[in-house]
Amino acid sequence: MTLACGIDVGGTKIAGAVVDVDGTILEESRVESPATDVEAIEKAIAGLVADLRTRHAVERVGIGAAGYVDAGRARVLFAPNLAWRNLDLKAELEEHIDLPVVIENDANSAAWGEFAFGAGADVDDLLMVTVGTGVGGGLVLDGELYRGAYGVAAEIGHLRVVPDGHLCGCGNRGCLEQYGSGSALVREARTAAAGSSQRAASLLERAGGDPASITGPLITAAAQDGDPFAIELLASLARWLGAGIASLVAVLDPAAVVIGGGVSEAGDLLLDPMRTAFESHLSVHGYRPAAEIRAATLGNKAGVIGAADLARR
Amino acid sequence: MTLACGIDVGGTKIAGAVVDVDGTILEESRVESPATDVEAIEKAIAGLVADLRTRHAVERVGIGAAGYVDAGRARVLFAPNLAWRNLDLKAELEEHIDLPVVIENDANSAAWGEFAFGAGADVDDLLMVTVGTGVGGGLVLDGELYRGAYGVAAEIGHLRVVPDGHLCGCGNRGCLEQYGSGSALVREARTAAAGSSQRAASLLERAGGDPASITGPLITAAAQDGDPFAIELLASLARWLGAGIASLVAVLDPAAVVIGGGVSEAGDLLLDPMRTAFESHLSVHGYRPAAEIRAATLGNKAGVIGAADLARR
Amino acid sequence: MTLACGIDVGGTKIAGAVVDVDGTILEESRVESPATDVEAIEKAIAGLVADLRTRHAVERVGIGAAGYVDAGRARVLFAPNLAWRNLDLKAELEEHIDLPVVIENDANSAAWGEFAFGAGADVDDLLMVTVGTGVGGGLVLDGELYRGAYGVAAEIGHLRVVPDGHLCGCGNRGCLEQYGSGSALVREARTAAAGSSQRAASLLERAGGDPASITGPLITAAAQDGDPFAIELLASLARWLGAGIASLVAVLDPAAVVIGGGVSEAGDLLLDPMRTAFESHLSVHGYRPAAEIRAATLGNKAGVIGAADLARR
Amino acid sequence: MTLACGIDVGGTKIAGAVVDVDGTILEESRVESPATDVEAIEKAIAGLVADLRTRHAVERVGIGAAGYVDAGRARVLFAPNLAWRNLDLKAELEEHIDLPVVIENDANSAAWGEFAFGAGADVDDLLMVTVGTGVGGGLVLDGELYRGAYGVAAEIGHLRVVPDGHLCGCGNRGCLEQYGSGSALVREARTAAAGSSQRAASLLERAGGDPASITGPLITAAAQDGDPFAIELLASLARWLGAGIASLVAVLDPAAVVIGGGVSEAGDLLLDPMRTAFESHLSVHGYRPAAEIRAATLGNKAGVIGAADLARR
Repeated sequence: MTLACGIDVGGTKIAGAVVDVDGTILEESRVESPATDVEAIEKAIAGLVADLRTRHAVERVGIGAAGYVDAGRARVLFAPNLAWRNLDLKAELEEHIDLPVVIENDANSAAWGEFAFGAGADVDDLLMVTVGTGVGGGLVLDGELYRGAYGVAAEIGHLRVVPDGHLCGCGNRGCLEQYGSGSALVREARTAAAGSSQRAASLLERAGGDPASITGPLITAAAQDGDPFAIELLASLARWLGAGIASLVAVLDPAAVVIGGGVSEAGDLLLDPMRTAFESHLSVHGYRPAAEIRAATLGNKAGVIGAADLARR
Repeated sequence: MTLACGIDVGGTKIAGAVVDVDGTILEESRVESPATDVEAIEKAIAGLVADLRTRHAVERVGIGAAGYVDAGRARVLFAPNLAWRNLDLKAELEEHIDLPVVIENDANSAAWGEFAFGAGADVDDLLMVTVGTGVGGGLVLDGELYRGAYGVAAEIGHLRVVPDGHLCGCGNRGCLEQYGSGSALVREARTAAAGSSQRAASLLERAGGDPASITGPLITAAAQDGDPFAIELLASLARWLGAGIASLVAVLDPAAVVIGGGVSEAGDLLLDPMRTAFESHLSVHGYRPAAEIRAATLGNKAGVIGAADLARR
Repeated sequence: MTLACGIDVGGTKIAGAVVDVDGTILEESRVESPATDVEAIEKAIAGLVADLRTRHAVERVGIGAAGYVDAGRARVLFAPNLAWRNLDLKAELEEHIDLPVVIENDANSAAWGEFAFGAGADVDDLLMVTVGTGVGGGLVLDGELYRGAYGVAAEIGHLRVVPDGHLCGCGNRGCLEQYGSGSALVREARTAAAGSSQRAASLLERAGGDPASITGPLITAAAQDGDPFAIELLASLARWLGAGIASLVAVLDPAAVVIGGGVSEAGDLLLDPMRTAFESHLSVHGYRPAAEIRAATLGNKAGVIGAADLARR
Repeated sequence: MTLACGIDVGGTKIAGAVVDVDGTILEESRVESPATDVEAIEKAIAGLVADLRTRHAVERVGIGAAGYVDAGRARVLFAPNLAWRNLDLKAELEEHIDLPVVIENDANSAAWGEFAFGAGADVDDLLMVTVGTGVGGGLVLDGELYRGAYGVAAEIGHLRVVPDGHLCGCGNRGCLEQYGSGSALVREARTAAAGSSQRAASLLERAGGDPASITGPLITAAAQDGDPFAIELLASLARWLGAGIASLVAVLDPAAVVIGGGVSEAGDLLLDPMRTAFESHLSVHGYRPAAEIRAATLGNKAGVIGAADLARR
């Protein structure tokens, strides 16, 4: 049995876990992320691994990172929230860690986690959609993680869904991420609250009267308490995602679409309108078998579990 | 050496060819397509194959058809321009033809043809875009034709590019096909000609004064003669396609995008503005390697060549 | 009491009526419209007037024409469906008719008819919306017909409602007329019927299986018989019109919006979803008094009644 | 000769001026605006007027306020940036000021100022467009200020230009104000600067590295220094405005469109692309006389001059 260590490197924290071949987590740990300091992040990752190795016979390390990773699973081309620019992270880390290291995109890692041990364990073709601050994606096709010719496939958040739409940080306009992410959810709620909208009154009260204090979890909590505007905000997000997924299914024809990420904790408040929009927008719906939209089952552990397992492959 | 027969079944004609393992066509033939009569189409295909076999040692038959084909390469789920609805075409044809038959989507066949013997012979990951009456697509990923979980992948013409846009025959709105196909090109030209537009005067004259006589080849010819409005119509089509391809490249990350289909005969009048739009809409352009947009090299033979070769696999 | 003759010049027929100062029609008459022959139209109008004068003491003639009429109520700048291009129609007609003639836009005439004697008789500020083949408009502001600086105001069908939307005969894209007119209604129905849509099956059956035989009245009849797709087509049209009217009300702040034209014969099937859309799209709705949306009451007589009355002013 | 006092009540300051019948300002003054305190604003206005009256024989007071004012020129229905909600401001102020007071919308006041003494002095029909934090409008039709049936006409910032577009503070989506205002300009610049965009590097440097420090004047200054991205941001704004004005001209047919407000200080960097977009989007352009787009000539004095003059009428 080969134990592997999966690491999820985020903008605010670094999470690590020792994962066995069944996808079971034997131990978890996390440290602060010194996001803007390349050297410090590497040392933090190495320290985290070293500590876990004192108690587990780890043989591989898999790193999941938000960013563009090359096809060789070694080099980070670009990471929006970290200081990495065209960095051979594999080589750098292997200097600190005396074990084979592989680098993967974080949504790819989560996709693999759900495919190998979670909501997609029964299918061969899976699209993972992570709805968090942004919208990420991962693809498992014919039972293999699909990375693309250059390693940067599955950037589904940058599907253009509105011509001349919202400007995106990626330089394009109208990206799905601008309509279907947690950031979009919060932007819409804050705009409504800052305007004259009576509909947002309850959200504004929860936020202590300050539109800038409205957050995604606050909106989800309000929706779960029955606030009609919060429910509608989640449903609007879900409709954009459902329509975007219908486009992706026309192209990719997966057996399952697995929805994860922080916003997916809203559950059926998100999934029900998403499924309705998906069905109403799917091309030739009724004449073709269609992917099933499912909730992720590994929660925020999908990334470390998937990264660990990918390191073994 | 195994010879195979590739068949391209269209709404108006059925083309057949004997193809060797190098993708070379040894002989071609074509008959009228009795599109609305299921029995008659089958007999026409069988007759065409039988005739070619009298002169060639054909061992396999590959059928490329416009429509949704199941993952088993046997059953046509739906064919918009033919009478086929959920038909086990492989079984039906094998009754008439005493050879193994495989059924493939026509754009998939063309994609495979270009991958195996044409514009994509040097890459592992390829997106084929066929711009004809509609917009079709085919995917070769990691060196294999990608058919999807249910056989209906790569329907890129049904990517939604405009929310609440033009109604599409597929039941959805705003599909790429409504903006980037030959039909869209003709629709725009006719609308302009039927209106008060001076810009369309030259096109209208070529069409003998009747907007309904404006066709795709007529527009391409006018553009090649320097008519500014025809050039702009092609460029507008190309911009939609280029933006759509940018979305697809964000998701699929192929090494090459190969442009075929009848409208692609406009050449650089289509490809130049398409490449410009692609680059300006590609997410994080400049920070990532990007697919090359190339003209197809097999022309309208890509389908029969690809179908024949797929029948051998 | 001054009697006036109102004339409504359309692409297929010319209708005339003798109208008294109360807006009552004393006699009506109509002839075929020789739409493409300038001289013949004038003679047809003159003949129609001459005939009516043999039985009525007509002192004024008002012409309502689909087209752009100058501020002097004399010259037709452009008429999309007639042969008139920058024609001094007043002078031409006064050569044939020995009475003062005024030329008005047809929707302006209808607006004045409804304002003076119909659905807007109780208000000072009225927007008329005529939903027929196209979408026309007329404005009565502070109790006077508002013609604009150059006579071409109230062309509300050419409000741009979708950036880069449907190409319009006017040369622009995304005009309200492309989404809210009878032509749009028919286009959407025919596209659905020509595609694979089961939803359109009932419409297609009414049209004898030929999508090209689907007409506006056929759709309305189907909707009145409860066909869900026909109801939805009218509702979709109504939503575009309701949203467009919300924009126009933000700019014009009328007391009433009067809906006329052939498509308005669908009644509440059009008006109910239009009112709902209007309310949901009206800026600061709830903090401001808002126009009432009303059905026209003069039907297709509004034009001749209004043209006659305007000729007296 | 009747002197009048014009007051411009904004969210941060209250400006007052004594204006003679020729539109000449005899003296100006300004105080801080206690925006959230109804009583304090009234006292501030009254104090400002009282002070000016000690040196000038003022006989009328005109108030221009950002908000919805009723048709009786007395009551403020709603003011987005002030504490006024359905307030009879005329009655309240006349208790403090022993002179006739009239209340007007601020953009209406500016429109009247430009019509009576500025860029529109030679026409009868004028549309004023004020491009500041928001987008405001004023209409002079047939030589009279047009207020609408309920006093709330000319809210052109709330023309819907994008279906399902940016959420607006007014409760609607896709309002022109969300695409053509100074706020939109700043939003786009900040988003680009916060993303990975190299294009925004120069703007970001001017802002000391903090996207949140980018302001409208900073963008205008950069554009005037030749920064291509700042020029493009202004041009993009101008294109939305030009297309919106084309819609408004189709409806209103004014002889002149006068562009004022803070952003208009960018001059031809705004006006040139605006005119180009206007011409390319104007319905049946070429077959109809079209409004001239002009720069305002009274600058930020248009409001007080217009309010003062309206108080005399």
